[in-house]
Amino acid sequence: MRGTVLYGPHDVRFEDCPDPKIIQPTDAIIRMSATCVCGSDLWPYRGAQPITEPTPMGHEYCGIVEEVGRAVTSVRPGQFVIGSFATSDNTCPNCQYGYQSSCMHREFITRAQAPVLRVPLADGTLVPTSGVPSNDLLPSLLTTSDVLGTGWFAADAANVKPGSTVVVVGDGAVGLLGILSAKQMGAGRIIAISRHEKRQKLAREFGATDIVTERGDEGVARIKELTRGIGADSVLECVGTQESMKQAIRATRPGGYTSFVGVPHGVELDGQELFFAHVRLHGGPAPVRRYLPKLIDLVLNGKISPGKVFDLTLPLDQVAEGYRAMDERRAIKTLLRP
Amino acid sequence: MRGTVLYGPHDVRFEDCPDPKIIQPTDAIIRMSATCVCGSDLWPYRGAQPITEPTPMGHEYCGIVEEVGRAVTSVRPGQFVIGSFATSDNTCPNCQYGYQSSCMHREFITRAQAPVLRVPLADGTLVPTSGVPSNDLLPSLLTTSDVLGTGWFAADAANVKPGSTVVVVGDGAVGLLGILSAKQMGAGRIIAISRHEKRQKLAREFGATDIVTERGDEGVARIKELTRGIGADSVLECVGTQESMKQAIRATRPGGYTSFVGVPHGVELDGQELFFAHVRLHGGPAPVRRYLPKLIDLVLNGKISPGKVFDLTLPLDQVAEGYRAMDERRAIKTLLRP
Repeated sequence: MRGTVLYGPHDVRFEDCPDPKIIQPTDAIIRMSATCVCGSDLWPYRGAQPITEPTPMGHEYCGIVEEVGRAVTSVRPGQFVIGSFATSDNTCPNCQYGYQSSCMHREFITRAQAPVLRVPLADGTLVPTSGVPSNDLLPSLLTTSDVLGTGWFAADAANVKPGSTVVVVGDGAVGLLGILSAKQMGAGRIIAISRHEKRQKLAREFGATDIVTERGDEGVARIKELTRGIGADSVLECVGTQESMKQAIRATRPGGYTSFVGVPHGVELDGQELFFAHVRLHGGPAPVRRYLPKLIDLVLNGKISPGKVFDLTLPLDQVAEGYRAMDERRAIKTLLRP
Repeated sequence: MRGTVLYGPHDVRFEDCPDPKIIQPTDAIIRMSATCVCGSDLWPYRGAQPITEPTPMGHEYCGIVEEVGRAVTSVRPGQFVIGSFATSDNTCPNCQYGYQSSCMHREFITRAQAPVLRVPLADGTLVPTSGVPSNDLLPSLLTTSDVLGTGWFAADAANVKPGSTVVVVGDGAVGLLGILSAKQMGAGRIIAISRHEKRQKLAREFGATDIVTERGDEGVARIKELTRGIGADSVLECVGTQESMKQAIRATRPGGYTSFVGVPHGVELDGQELFFAHVRLHGGPAPVRRYLPKLIDLVLNGKISPGKVFDLTLPLDQVAEGYRAMDERRAIKTLLRP
């Protein structure tokens, strides 16, 4: 088969790769229905994360099971399944505690920007649907694999409750779905930070009540104006830079919650600033597996349409253009069809 | 009167100072029943925090009200009162949210290592008892002003619940009272980090079930051994150094809680390490005012004896020896009697 490989900054190739095979008896092989490019793929694509050797790419996926190892009992060939970007046995103490993305046997999925994928720990990682869903639901179902699950975790880790005042830093697909998640959790006010007209529009459609275009200290000052001078109850940091982390922490009220789900790059937090900020800070790789059944239900029942973040759809073999469009912010997120 | 002034590293003087007077109509003047030296006083005493001019010291206090400003309504002369090291109006949005130590009109108390003290925002800061308590309760009541309140916040911010597995990093008075607090909150297991025999003994008396003597990565490995390889539910960081913060975060299970109440000095947190640690981090100046009524009740009802952390009592004019004894770890905490 052919799959996606990153060779270096701005050098994505779709090229011959070995066909995935069952290696462990707990593996499954799935044929991809849809996959996509993640905001986090842009870190190595832009050179912010060094690439020392050709690296297979992709970790968001849904598809039809083709084959399972002999130890797999909960999914079977022919089923439509979705899994997290992090594999999990779903039985270890960390999984039982709801932190499947820190499973003691975790592996991070790569190679998902390809027509076929091997998924380790299939029983604990994959969630099957009761039938094969219609094609129009694929984009929204695909988001549950990472980008929606991550936005949902951002809102959950920031303790969004009915009536909460929420700020979302970052207008990428994760930030936009953080808005959708906060809305689902009953937030009373959702302030989106965005300067990009098309993203502002989607932010409003997903539930944003206010848009702030200022960044850094000016952005914080604007948020304070909107929140009686104290800051927001819940701030979702969905970028991963030093500037966005600072803005998020400073925009949170004392005793409030800052979540961070953008993989931090070059972020250093000053202990004394964090101390006097008085915020509750929680982040990390989203435990998507915990949320998958609920999020899949919300999509299948037509309650949410997170697939709207895909504003570009390409055949899988044009994956390089998918990266380029996101890098240049021409696209929010690129869906790839095998 | 005479009061305590820090001139530079290891240079504490008890010298003539102006008598405190009512300045604002919301002030109260109290005559000190007891005061003490705080672990945080040792930062500037040791030169870890620069002193640019002679600095009046002391922020833990309880005593009898002598005089109140004309706007004060909730305390009156003759009453025994205890207040937090941070003043608060107890009405602003941050106070109402339970974060009185981030009150929008906060001042930090200084000058409490003296026989008389001016307390701003007396109505929102001071809590009176119904009568004047007996002398033997003074040490325990004094702890509620900061060191117990801070230990209690450490346990609360680390979400200690009945049955929790708790680690306390730091065997100073705050750490020891973090143990007492965790015990009161029903912790099932309390692991104290200490190499100091006398402190280990008090830790056990307050509720510690295990003592770990290793530090750094070895300490983390030992804690992992004691916690099924996953780390503790709740870790209380009660020191404020880079090493202790790292140890605390690494000893916390994914999804668990790390609190930090030692004022951070030279602490920098790496964003990516924090991300993958997956912990919930919360700290800052303890909102002592929130806890004061409850903690005072626990002391008056004989449920707790936090005053045991005072293993040295000196007349106030020997305050310099009180600092020395704590600096050299000859004393856990020094009580000063005016």
